[in-house]
This record gives sequence, C-alpha cells and structure tokens, in this order.
Amino acid sequence: MATKLYEQVADEIIARIEGGYYTAGQKLPSIRVLAQEYGVSISTVQEAYRIIEERGYTEVRPKSGHFVKARNSAPVLPDVSPLPQRPVKVSAWSNILNMLNADEAENMLNLGWAIPDLKSPTLKPLTRDLNDINRRLGMRSLSYDYVRGNKALRRQIARLGVDSGLQLHPDDILVTSGCQEALSSSLRAITQPGDIVAVDSPFYFGAVQTIEASGLKAIEIPSHPETGTSLEALELAFAQWPIKVLVLTPTCNNPMGYSIPEAHRPKIIELCNQHDIILIEDDIYGDLSFQYPRPRSLKSYDTEGRVILCSSFSKTLAPGLRVGWVAPGRYLDEVLHMKYVSSISTPTVSQMAVAEYVSQGAYERHLRKMRENYQRGRDIMIELIQRYFPEGTRMTYPQGGFVIWVVMPKAINTTELNNRVKQFGISFAPGELFTTTKKYKNQMRLNYTNCPCLEVEEAIRTIGQISKEMLLEA
Amino acid sequence: MATKLYEQVADEIIARIEGGYYTAGQKLPSIRVLAQEYGVSISTVQEAYRIIEERGYTEVRPKSGHFVKARNSAPVLPDVSPLPQRPVKVSAWSNILNMLNADEAENMLNLGWAIPDLKSPTLKPLTRDLNDINRRLGMRSLSYDYVRGNKALRRQIARLGVDSGLQLHPDDILVTSGCQEALSSSLRAITQPGDIVAVDSPFYFGAVQTIEASGLKAIEIPSHPETGTSLEALELAFAQWPIKVLVLTPTCNNPMGYSIPEAHRPKIIELCNQHDIILIEDDIYGDLSFQYPRPRSLKSYDTEGRVILCSSFSKTLAPGLRVGWVAPGRYLDEVLHMKYVSSISTPTVSQMAVAEYVSQGAYERHLRKMRENYQRGRDIMIELIQRYFPEGTRMTYPQGGFVIWVVMPKAINTTELNNRVKQFGISFAPGELFTTTKKYKNQMRLNYTNCPCLEVEEAIRTIGQISKEMLLEA
Ligand SMILES: Cc1ncc(COP(=O)(O)O)c(C=O)c1O
Ligand SMILES: Cc1ncc(COP(=O)(O)O)c(C=O)c1O
Repeated sequence: MATKLYEQVADEIIARIEGGYYTAGQKLPSIRVLAQEYGVSISTVQEAYRIIEERGYTEVRPKSGHFVKARNSAPVLPDVSPLPQRPVKVSAWSNILNMLNADEAENMLNLGWAIPDLKSPTLKPLTRDLNDINRRLGMRSLSYDYVRGNKALRRQIARLGVDSGLQLHPDDILVTSGCQEALSSSLRAITQPGDIVAVDSPFYFGAVQTIEASGLKAIEIPSHPETGTSLEALELAFAQWPIKVLVLTPTCNNPMGYSIPEAHRPKIIELCNQHDIILIEDDIYGDLSFQYPRPRSLKSYDTEGRVILCSSFSKTLAPGLRVGWVAPGRYLDEVLHMKYVSSISTPTVSQMAVAEYVSQGAYERHLRKMRENYQRGRDIMIELIQRYFPEGTRMTYPQGGFVIWVVMPKAINTTELNNRVKQFGISFAPGELFTTTKKYKNQMRLNYTNCPCLEVEEAIRTIGQISKEMLLEA
Repeated sequence: MATKLYEQVADEIIARIEGGYYTAGQKLPSIRVLAQEYGVSISTVQEAYRIIEERGYTEVRPKSGHFVKARNSAPVLPDVSPLPQRPVKVSAWSNILNMLNADEAENMLNLGWAIPDLKSPTLKPLTRDLNDINRRLGMRSLSYDYVRGNKALRRQIARLGVDSGLQLHPDDILVTSGCQEALSSSLRAITQPGDIVAVDSPFYFGAVQTIEASGLKAIEIPSHPETGTSLEALELAFAQWPIKVLVLTPTCNNPMGYSIPEAHRPKIIELCNQHDIILIEDDIYGDLSFQYPRPRSLKSYDTEGRVILCSSFSKTLAPGLRVGWVAPGRYLDEVLHMKYVSSISTPTVSQMAVAEYVSQGAYERHLRKMRENYQRGRDIMIELIQRYFPEGTRMTYPQGGFVIWVVMPKAINTTELNNRVKQFGISFAPGELFTTTKKYKNQMRLNYTNCPCLEVEEAIRTIGQISKEMLLEA
C-alpha cells in the first residue's frame, strides 16, 4: 500500500520528536516553514500536523501554534543517549551487519558494497610497486610510518589536489586508514556528544553510523536528484537549528550520483561562513566525475580554513589498501590527535606503493580508463533497470562514480526485498541504510562497476521479478 | 631540588580536585584510606592535607573531616569537557607531538618509540609472503577484507591464544588496525563521556590519549615495579569510585616491564566480577615474555565474558603492517560497530601475509629468537644505565618485551632533559607521557631493542652526562 505524502511528512516529524530534536513544550515550526523545508504544499503539512495531534504527540494552542506534548507513556529520550538506549540506531547497524554477513557468504553477488573495478590492467603497476617496495626496502617498510603519513605520498596528494582547484601543501594533509577514518576522526575532533550535524539525505551509511556512534544528532537536508543539497532547505536549517557541522558529498554523490552545480558551490561556503558552520566535504568519488575537468571541490572556495576535505584511494584505486587522507584546514591539530588515537599510523607499504603509483602517472591513466568504463556501466545499468524493474521505478542519472539510486514503487519494502533475493545469491544496499530516520523504505543503491556482465543482468532480472511478485501481494 | 613525599601526595590530591574527581563540597577520603592507597604513612597524608588546606583547596570541618572548598577564582571544570578546555590534557598531547616531530627529523636516534627489531633474518619469510600474495592473488588482495577480519588470520590468532591459556573460536576475534584501534574501539564501545576508567600507572601513552580523547576520567592505580598493579589499591579504588572499566597491561607491562604474578591474576578477575567492572587486557607484549611458557592471560580466568583482550603483531612482528586484534567477549557486537566506524576494515594484504607467516610456523621461530635477543638487550641496557647515569638512578627489571622504566634523581625533569639531548640527535619518552596527572617528572622509558649497539651506548652516555650537568645546576 502506497503511503500518502502527508503521512510521510507526519512520520518525519514524529521521528524528530521521538529522536529528541523537538522536545516537550517546544513549538513546532510554522506550517509555511515546514512546507518549504520538505518541498510540499501547505495543505500537506496541515494534514500531517492533524495526524500528529491525533496520535497524541502535539497539542494546538489557539493563536500560538503546535506544541510538543510531554508524554506519559514512553519517556522522552535523553539528549545524549548511549547506543543501547536508542533502538532506532541499533537497528540501522544491524541492517549493515546483515550486509556484512551476506558479504561473508560464499558466491554472493553483492550489488550493495561500493567496490571499484579491480580487474583493470591499469592497476597492474600497483601490484608491481607493492612487490618492489617489499623487496627493495625490506625491513624499513615494516616500521611505523609517520603519524601524519608518508611524506612522498602527501606530496603526491597535494599535487593531485590541483585538479579540483586546491592549493595544498603536503603539511596540510594527513594520511588516514581510508576515508572512513578521515570522516570519523574529523567528526570526533570537532564535535561533542549531543551536537547537531547537518547532512545531505540520503547519505553514506558509514557516515550515518559515525554520527550515531559518536552520540551526535543528524538533521537531514533533502537532496535534489540532479542538483543535490537544497540551498533553501540548508538556509532554513541553519537559521532554525544550532548546527555545528555540515557533512556533504557534493561531487559524484553517494548514493545519488549527482554533482552539485558549480554555481551553488560558493553559496554553500557563504552560508557556512555566515552561520559559522564547519563543513566536512567527502570527495571520495570526486576524481571519477564523468565531466572533464572535474568540478572544483567546495574546499577550493574556502578562505577561512573551515572546510575539512576527506577522501581516499578506495574508489579510484583499491579499497583493500586502506589509504585515505584528510585536509583539515584550521582543525589540523585536533584531527591529527584523533587519527593518532584511532590507529596511530597508516600501513607503511600501502602508502609507499600508492605514492609510487601516483608519481609514475599510472593513477591518472587508470582514472581515464575507469571514467570511461563506469560511464558505460551506468548507461547499461539504467537500461537493465528500465527493462526488468516494475513500472513506476525511477532512478538517478549519476554524473560519476559507480553507484545508482533506485526508487521503487511505494509498496515495495526494499529491506524485505533484499531478504527475499538473498536466496538467489544476490544482495544490494536497501534505502533504510542511508538515513537516521525512517525514510527510503522503497529505495535501494546498486553498483554498476562490472557492467556489462551477464551475472549482473541475471541479478537485475531476478530482483525485478521478485519485486513484481511483491507488488501483486500488496 | 627533591620534592618531599608529602608534597607529592598533596600534588596528587590537588590534581584530582582540579581534574574534577573531588568536587566542591565533597568530603575527601579519610587519612587512613589515602595512606593505604598511596602506600605512605599516616603522618605523610596528614602533612599533605595540611598543605592543601593552606593552599585554599579544602576546609576542615571539626569532627567531620576535610572538604573540598568551592573556588571563586578558577571555575570548577565541567564533568565532560572538550579537549581545548582541559589544558592539562592538551599539554600531554603536545608532548607526544614533540616526540612525533623528533621522529620526523632525520638522523634521530629515537629511544622513545617502542619499535621491535626489524632486521632479524627470521622476518625474511614475511617479506616473501607479502610478495607472493600480491603476485598470486593480484586483484583479490586489493578489495576490502571482511570487517571482522580475514578468516585465515582469525584462525591463526585463535590457535596462538592457546599459549596464554585461551580457548578462542575464530569468530570470537575481530581484526583491527593495530592494538591502538583495538583499545580505542573497545573503550568507545563500552563507555560514555564522563565514565571513570581505572588504569595501571604509569601506563601506555596511547591509552592515556584515548581516555582523554573520549572524554573519560582516569583513576590511576599504583603499580609495584615487580608485581604490578597493587591489589589493595585496586580494591580500595573499586570500593570508593563508580568505576566502569579497568585497563591493564599485565604481561611484560609497558612501560615498567613487570608481569603480574600468576597468583594475583585470578584475584583481579574476582574483583572485577564482584564490582561488575569490565576489564580491558592489553596483551601486546605478552608473547615476548622471557619466562617460558608465557604467563596465562587474565582473560583465561574469565568465565563471564567481561574481559576484552587487545593485542597486535606490532611488537612481535612489525608495526608497519598495522595488524592487531581484539577478543571482546560479550561486547563483540558493540566493538565490531566501533571498529567499523573507525576504519571499516584492516588492510587485506597485511592480514593475508601475517596469516601465511604464522601458519608456516615462522612466527614461533621468530619469537624464540626475539625473546633471546631482547633478554640480552635488557641486561646490556641495565649495565649501561648503571655505568653512565647519575648516582641514585633506579630502573625496573623487565620480564619481557624491550622497554625499561628509569627513575632518575628527583631534581631531573626528564621533559627538560629530553629537550636538551635533542641537539645531540637523541630522544626518549619522558615519564610525563605515561599519566593523566602530574607525575613521573623524573622518569623516562627507554627501548633496548638494538642493544648491544655502539650508537645506543653513546646515546646513554650523553643522556647520563647531561643529567649530571642538570644535577649540578639544581
Ligand atoms: C561517500 C563515502 N565516503 C567514505 C567511504 C569510506 O571509504 P574508505 O573505504 O576509503 O574508508 C565510502 C565507501 O563506501 C563512501 O562511499
Ligand atoms: C601497551 C601498548 N598497547 C598498544 C600499543 C599500540 O600498538 P599498535 O601499534 O599495534 O597499535 C602499544 C604500542 O606502543 C603499546 O605499547
């Protein structure tokens, strides 16, 4: 059964009340403001407010507005609550655990993990470099590397930054164990439990988990499938909430694939300056932009050192290396501290091999090839979805990278669908993973890394068929 | 100038008041209790209490005892304070930063980092394995490994556990990016900011930093240089404070080198059971015990799943691999979550190479050789210290591993000494790093990995000479 729009809005607001964003006695935003934030009509919000009141969450005070009621039954959750007291959050994690477990099963076709193409001959020099380093340096490559990261590698990362409009010195950069460590170390360095973080929505589930594990609160800013983060919603949220940090993946977004238009970019920085908000820019897919030259990073517009750029070679080269980096702007010392606490230093051989690979020019050669392949993969995947998925299915049109966001008909719960296709040896990433609230129940993320590929076509056909069966049951 | 014992005790108590452990209006422990905790006489504590009162920290209420005064000048620090608001803590970190920077300077002889011998021919097979894996598996070794860790490696770790009396299933184990990630993920999984963690003292500065970065409070339990953690002090602390976690390095302790006697081990577990305290056992040096067979781990006495064992191959093999592990007992899910948030997975090739190396029996061969070398190194280092350091210098007698704890005459500030020897291209780890309070100002940790070695002898001679000069100045 399709959920009505006003029911969705009501669910959203209830999630916020239950999550403690709106607390007992607090006045809810005006109907006009909410209508703007959600991009819906005034009457939709009116209807949503009526439902919420009916369910006992709010009361109307004449001439004043809608207020959150103190609740007798369930206790209002404390502001900073430990994981086990937040059922919503644990369930999001158990969803990921499911995906990890599926991953450990043999012979699974996992369309959920975002793994790049690892079979390209343009990666060969990397294996060769790894071997050379072990043979040449022997024992030196076995010691801790600098906590800040290998010097040669930081030089190469600084050089690559020029492509996205950056002018970085190697000492502005810290090497991390993947982009995930860059993100979690940065968030921990600049927040305290209870702080509010604004994020684009849907957003990468590793960041979702980081926010939850750090006891932070997320306020999700809706994204347009083509232009990304809504500037209006962002402005409203900044005005309304004491937001400390904004986390965005503006270029080749995961999961939606959009790149925020160049014209919007300086405006986002301006907004952050105005409201004194720290911006974490996740650029992990940036170099895989199909547009050439790639869009400038948000950080390249930053004159105040308030943008923390996080990235890695996990999507452009190989995730098993666990080599990422962060350019923390004015928060360098704090992020370095957290990186040290997290894992001291990053594996030495991996860093040396990547430095070598990049300095030979092999990285840029590899990128050119990958951009071509992935663009072809995208077009094929879109065709497959159009051919096999139920009528009414919509999808994004990725501007780079290798994942696509699919919106199924409302009646299809993708977590349930994922469970059903598992018996056919298939798994994907259900939409629920990409939010801290209860959204995206009929969405999914697929990767098209390996397209064209018969196995993938077969999998898409199977997912399509099972979803059609689910539609008939509904 | 040597500080008097009662002054030291007074400093300790003041540090606790300033750190917020004893808060305004609170009654301080009785003189008898404190005398036991510090292992000093009643009259010493009486004298210390007098000084504290004189300095305006406390007031005496007749027939009631000593109470902490509300202070007008400096505000009482908040319970959970962010890093920048705790000057003490930032300064501890800046000390480590200094050491890192020294490390980055060329031609430094760093006696401060605890780096194992990386030149031994018994490590050769590891380099060979790394190469083989890259060549043999190629692209497979470039993908993410399981978040829980490589299966073959977990099997080998489970097998090795038998030596310390453990019976682990591979699924009880999570692979981490070094022991540091095991420690920080574990602490984050089971605590919330403001929780109190008991630690042996002095203790490893990575753990110091983790506690500080996580907003936890540390209560330091004094260690005997030969038998380690004082059971009496532990019991007192458990009775007196709402302690959540105990962190110990019971075997080949860093920095002191002791191994807690077997007879004490079950008692520690009993105490934890009685007071419902989670125990984090750092066993990173355990396999380097000079005693054969090595002491049983504390975890081997645990029947309730409350011991979280953290370890790695950083000291026994090579730190540059960044391969560690954790056996989290009943906290497996929570620790897995934090490990995922910290860095997703551990580098694939490193894990495979270690699994191969261990399964070939090369690891046990290497350990035998290392235990021999380090025992010889210890004896030589002790001789060097006796020969070159000022009269009155004392040191521990390590039971394994490759670090030694040196107590210089009181008048020597080792942080200052460290700064002075830097110009001779030498650095070590000053005692201040190993505590959250203001202790160990005349202590230092040295590593004897490379003894015998002319360069090290030269360095010890230089440190000795400069300290004698400092004594003359005092
Ligand atoms: C947007 C985004 N950020 C960060 C990460 C984590 O990357 P890494 O494997 O380098 O830690 C991913 C991986 O899926 C991602 O998609
Ligand atoms: C007692 C102790 N625990 C943990 C660590 C961190 O080890 P790793 O390099 O495996 O993260 C060290 C390293 O010095 C240590 O001495």
